[in-house]
Amino acid sequence: MVESRWFGNLMLLLILANAVVLGWATYGGFALPYLLLVERVFIGVFVIELALKVYAWRGQYFRRAWNWFDFLVVVVSVIPATGPFSVLRVLRVLRILRIISAVPQMRMIITALFRSAPGMGTVIGLLLVIIYSAAVLGHQLFGENVPEYFGDLGTTLYTLFLVMTTENWPDVADAVAAHHPMGWMFFVLYIVLTTFIILNLVIGVIVTSMEQEVDRSMWAEDQELEEIQHQAVMDRLAELSQQVERLERLVREREGQPVSPPGSEN
Amino acid sequence: MVESRWFGNLMLLLILANAVVLGWATYGGFALPYLLLVERVFIGVFVIELALKVYAWRGQYFRRAWNWFDFLVVVVSVIPATGPFSVLRVLRVLRILRIISAVPQMRMIITALFRSAPGMGTVIGLLLVIIYSAAVLGHQLFGENVPEYFGDLGTTLYTLFLVMTTENWPDVADAVAAHHPMGWMFFVLYIVLTTFIILNLVIGVIVTSMEQEVDRSMWAEDQELEEIQHQAVMDRLAELSQQVERLERLVREREGQPVSPPGSEN
Amino acid sequence: MVESRWFGNLMLLLILANAVVLGWATYGGFALPYLLLVERVFIGVFVIELALKVYAWRGQYFRRAWNWFDFLVVVVSVIPATGPFSVLRVLRVLRILRIISAVPQMRMIITALFRSAPGMGTVIGLLLVIIYSAAVLGHQLFGENVPEYFGDLGTTLYTLFLVMTTENWPDVADAVAAHHPMGWMFFVLYIVLTTFIILNLVIGVIVTSMEQEVDRSMWAEDQELEEIQHQAVMDRLAELSQQVERLERLVREREGQPVSPPGSEN
Amino acid sequence: MVESRWFGNLMLLLILANAVVLGWATYGGFALPYLLLVERVFIGVFVIELALKVYAWRGQYFRRAWNWFDFLVVVVSVIPATGPFSVLRVLRVLRILRIISAVPQMRMIITALFRSAPGMGTVIGLLLVIIYSAAVLGHQLFGENVPEYFGDLGTTLYTLFLVMTTENWPDVADAVAAHHPMGWMFFVLYIVLTTFIILNLVIGVIVTSMEQEVDRSMWAEDQELEEIQHQAVMDRLAELSQQVERLERLVREREGQPVSPPGSEN
Repeated sequence: MVESRWFGNLMLLLILANAVVLGWATYGGFALPYLLLVERVFIGVFVIELALKVYAWRGQYFRRAWNWFDFLVVVVSVIPATGPFSVLRVLRVLRILRIISAVPQMRMIITALFRSAPGMGTVIGLLLVIIYSAAVLGHQLFGENVPEYFGDLGTTLYTLFLVMTTENWPDVADAVAAHHPMGWMFFVLYIVLTTFIILNLVIGVIVTSMEQEVDRSMWAEDQELEEIQHQAVMDRLAELSQQVERLERLVREREGQPVSPPGSEN
Repeated sequence: MVESRWFGNLMLLLILANAVVLGWATYGGFALPYLLLVERVFIGVFVIELALKVYAWRGQYFRRAWNWFDFLVVVVSVIPATGPFSVLRVLRVLRILRIISAVPQMRMIITALFRSAPGMGTVIGLLLVIIYSAAVLGHQLFGENVPEYFGDLGTTLYTLFLVMTTENWPDVADAVAAHHPMGWMFFVLYIVLTTFIILNLVIGVIVTSMEQEVDRSMWAEDQELEEIQHQAVMDRLAELSQQVERLERLVREREGQPVSPPGSEN
Repeated sequence: MVESRWFGNLMLLLILANAVVLGWATYGGFALPYLLLVERVFIGVFVIELALKVYAWRGQYFRRAWNWFDFLVVVVSVIPATGPFSVLRVLRVLRILRIISAVPQMRMIITALFRSAPGMGTVIGLLLVIIYSAAVLGHQLFGENVPEYFGDLGTTLYTLFLVMTTENWPDVADAVAAHHPMGWMFFVLYIVLTTFIILNLVIGVIVTSMEQEVDRSMWAEDQELEEIQHQAVMDRLAELSQQVERLERLVREREGQPVSPPGSEN
Repeated sequence: MVESRWFGNLMLLLILANAVVLGWATYGGFALPYLLLVERVFIGVFVIELALKVYAWRGQYFRRAWNWFDFLVVVVSVIPATGPFSVLRVLRVLRILRIISAVPQMRMIITALFRSAPGMGTVIGLLLVIIYSAAVLGHQLFGENVPEYFGDLGTTLYTLFLVMTTENWPDVADAVAAHHPMGWMFFVLYIVLTTFIILNLVIGVIVTSMEQEVDRSMWAEDQELEEIQHQAVMDRLAELSQQVERLERLVREREGQPVSPPGSEN
């Protein structure tokens, strides 16, 4: 039952309805107590769903990572959020993310992201090294004079993330320029460099994706065709070879000589 | 007549002229009454064009979606905009969009967009799930302390769209930082995540486009060439086979024996 | 002489020096009179270069578009800038752009841009139609209440270009929101739509570039190899056919019969 | 020893630890004197590592550019930073960048960047020419009236970089618009043009990367397969040719005639 199509669609519908209720609850007002009640019903249904699935698949259930995600989300919902209150209320939002685990196509995208991560790891690492170096350098250069942006490592890293999104960076540059007339060089170089590395990251991902997806399918098809054509040529040649062999045997037989086995001379 | 080239070009010219008049009318001034008069003439011409086309094609006219678009735009123009005034005045702008339905190349791009939509649907859905989850989470975390940005779901969604365009996000982050010192993590993670997903969307579209357009044409050409070469080889082999067969028949005839049919031994 | 390598490099050096002088002149100060003098020397040299090239190539000189560009830039420099003063001073900047016409690689990029323009024409046209429609719509919706951003068509177009670069768009949206609570929909839709179309433009250019550059060279190489292999197979088959033919002739000769021409039975 | 895996990993760990210490030191406080002491230990270890490597590889050490980088970073660390104080303190940050030279994958990316640089040189040069021309033009047009943004070449170049990142450009445009009502044309054209050239740069890099990576490997594989198939066909044909030849010899022998060498008639 839990593997049938209508069951999956029903659960997806319930998850979406739960997401709507969670969104509605942000408006508060007189509907809030009713919404909280409805939410308890949702949690109850999700617990039943979980129980059914674990019962149906037993040990197999915990083999897939997505099932672990579903399991933890439901378990977290059940624990009464009394002691450490705000933390568990916050995790309610994970129930919306169950949409991803309920739609196979979305699950595939996330899985693909995780699998492509190691390929991008080096470029992201490079980006982090550049940002960290720029933060230490920025603190050393401007930390004393512009403490509001370059006071310590954390502040500097935040400032540099801000500059990297090219948001409000002229404000930062102006604050620095008051003390360091050549400070603009730092920002121009930093923006150009990080943009360049991110660009490289993007290009790398595109090239890798192309390599994997586009070519594999088309190439396989092309090589299959070549294989079929090649086989046709080889079959035709084998047939021809048999013909010639038969002819050879015929010529020998004319003389009354014993026919030597055809493969013996090859 | 309605299918001839000059008719299409004339109508495109009239649509462009109408667009210029609509733009000119925004400056108001003494020319406004004359422009409104000119517009009525345009609407009259468009009604005549519509009547001609429907008469020429009959039932076939309503088979194409673009014709429905043209039809509705003209019908909306004719209805006197007296009661619900502003709504219909606003729809006048659709007459400018008829440029798209009048230029075949633009029509093709829009059609291609609609056809590529299902492929992108999953990634766009994923993006919406992430933004919605972030909105519910953002309201829960900051809603009480920073109601001007995270007051309810609508406000939060708007704030997050704003942050996603990286516009004014430091203002929002600063407003949050006054109450939640770790609030910057939410924004940094949100920007990185949405940028990453949008990037994935873009890459997916590029890879799919490449797969469809580039390869199909070139590959077909390549396979056609291979097919021709393969056919030439097979023809040559068939000819050779006939030659050998003829030789076999010749050798047998020398002896006056009846010739066995050549295919009987294969 | 004018076609030799050192002449081209010398002229490039002079154009670069001229660019430096033009940049230096922006600082004004005591050096300005000397720089103006140096500039006259540059113009003199460029006139001599032009004269030499026209003398060397005669009518052929004006066949290439880049030479027309060089010609006009030099002619404009010579005309005394007395009457309509500022216009001609401004055109001095074109002399810097002669760097492009002096470096063959840059010339190639610009030529490639012009050639790829028709392919992008439709998408750019689509973008302009969308922006124009949005401007007329924006003026109709918000023109009365927010005249500083949507007063007339020109102002609205400028506002929408500003919004398209996602710069200061929250300011515009806030000014609109004071009068139209649903105004944010206009901006969100507009940003999403224009971003989407520009994205499509970019992808289209990438796909077209790939189609033209990558494949053509590799494919030609691949087909050349296939052609060579195919030729080798066909040659080998022709040789084999001759061998069989010779054998046939030999068998017939044994009997003293007249040999029939080999092709007569095909 | 210096080439073993654990040695490389140990040094990478030490470089990372050093980076953490450098970051920690930005917070100052009571830990600062201890951190400075720890740093001296790090420098000591790096000097020993350098000595070991130079001893192990001798002259070969200085053949690789990355080793030069390591060498200079360590030498700079040792020189006492007393006289020209701030300059050498700043270069401490280079020790963080040694992470790149310690991780082979990152080294490869940087090497690839340097190698792809000449291909992008022309487009970057074109971009610089456009920006420089725009700066000279901008100074000529607006320099007198808006000196805070277009006062001299340096200021103008900085303003134009700022506009290129589309940050605060409406402020600049408004300052210009007060004196030059048509000034917006300059900014709109400049933004469209630079965006377009940067886009071209990106596309060029993507296309070049594709050309180099994707195709080379797949194509080689495809051609290898074709080569194998072609060889199989040729071998089969050669075998067939031998068969026919043997048959010819047999027919001749039947008559007791001397067999002519088989190649003599070709």
